Amino acid sequence: MPLERIFMDFIKKPMEIENRSMEIIAPYLKDLNLTEEEVKVYSRIIHAAGDVEYAPIIKLHPQAIAATKTAIKSGCNIYTDVEMVRTGINKRTLAKFGGEVFCKVADEEVKKLAERESITRSMAAMRSFGDKLNGSIIAIGNAPTALFEVLRLVREDHIKPEVIVGIPVGFVGAADSKKALAKQSQIPYITVEGTKGGSPIAVAAINAIIYMLDNSR
Amino acid sequence: MPLERIFMDFIKKPMEIENRSMEIIAPYLKDLNLTEEEVKVYSRIIHAAGDVEYAPIIKLHPQAIAATKTAIKSGCNIYTDVEMVRTGINKRTLAKFGGEVFCKVADEEVKKLAERESITRSMAAMRSFGDKLNGSIIAIGNAPTALFEVLRLVREDHIKPEVIVGIPVGFVGAADSKKALAKQSQIPYITVEGTKGGSPIAVAAINAIIYMLDNSR
Repeated sequence: MPLERIFMDFIKKPMEIENRSMEIIAPYLKDLNLTEEEVKVYSRIIHAAGDVEYAPIIKLHPQAIAATKTAIKSGCNIYTDVEMVRTGINKRTLAKFGGEVFCKVADEEVKKLAERESITRSMAAMRSFGDKLNGSIIAIGNAPTALFEVLRLVREDHIKPEVIVGIPVGFVGAADSKKALAKQSQIPYITVEGTKGGSPIAVAAINAIIYMLDNSR
Repeated sequence: MPLERIFMDFIKKPMEIENRSMEIIAPYLKDLNLTEEEVKVYSRIIHAAGDVEYAPIIKLHPQAIAATKTAIKSGCNIYTDVEMVRTGINKRTLAKFGGEVFCKVADEEVKKLAERESITRSMAAMRSFGDKLNGSIIAIGNAPTALFEVLRLVREDHIKPEVIVGIPVGFVGAADSKKALAKQSQIPYITVEGTKGGSPIAVAAINAIIYMLDNSR
């Protein structure tokens, strides 16, 4: 198609774009034996990455979607490693149930803790949430160190979040941290194998489940 | 390595993580004939995606880095399609030169314009910036419709931004919008071919250039 035509014809209606995108993604999911709700989570992740190669590397704990829905409906909060994840999560629907989204990575106290301990700021941020993580949803979309810290809090300090969406990205620690998440059996999780991931991927997973609870969509 | 060891040994220092990541990425760039500054932009994009397959699909206009540096140093603003891009851009360094980052997608007036015209909100947001886009940096990390609209403003309304970082994502319009960006010759651009892209990718490209101007790093 010549560019002049593309400029006239491109789809401008949000729901049409979303529906067309989900149609394009569907064939890549058909052999994965997913439930209808799992298809929604997978599709939104693939849509957010523009990358169908996510299909075989997404790892969903069998209780993850149900646990997330229950947690949201009971008004629990979401704690994130970075501001981009906090920004992306649909807070309007969450607020209807009483939940909020928190991120501490830019706090002065967290910055000092990170410098004092020679750790990353997102790791210090998760540590400083402490007991608040009990009964919460945790969403990590950037820092492997933040996910390692959450897993340490679960193992050593017996913190019990309802679900961990752990999808940090990169070549240093991300794959290992996500492997450790999938290996523990205490907390339902959503993750992605390997080096890929990132804020929009963690956001996509959470928003897909939030939208299941939003009757206006 | 057993998981217990990984928990003890993972790297916790931010600059060490970044340097190690850049080392891992370097071999994937060596045949691309890049300048030292281009390597920085490519590396940060690949780091943000956790995906070395970005290496051959990144498209940098020869003047893009120089134009972005000049624009930032002259205190120009950055206009984004979505809040996640606004959130991710390093505003501290930008502010030293007098620049700010703006996003209108959540504005009530933009919502009304989008409904009235049956277009996406990010498209309406770019349209409502209007003349402010002259001499600015535009950063699009989500919506193909926003990039199409910016290209229409350049063609039809003779808006002249200094540079367009256009890296929308997805299966509906993203590849076409980025092809159109790379085909025009008026405005220097940074983009990625195909369906991949997203907020952290657009943010990575801009921040890589901002960091070139930050002597404290």
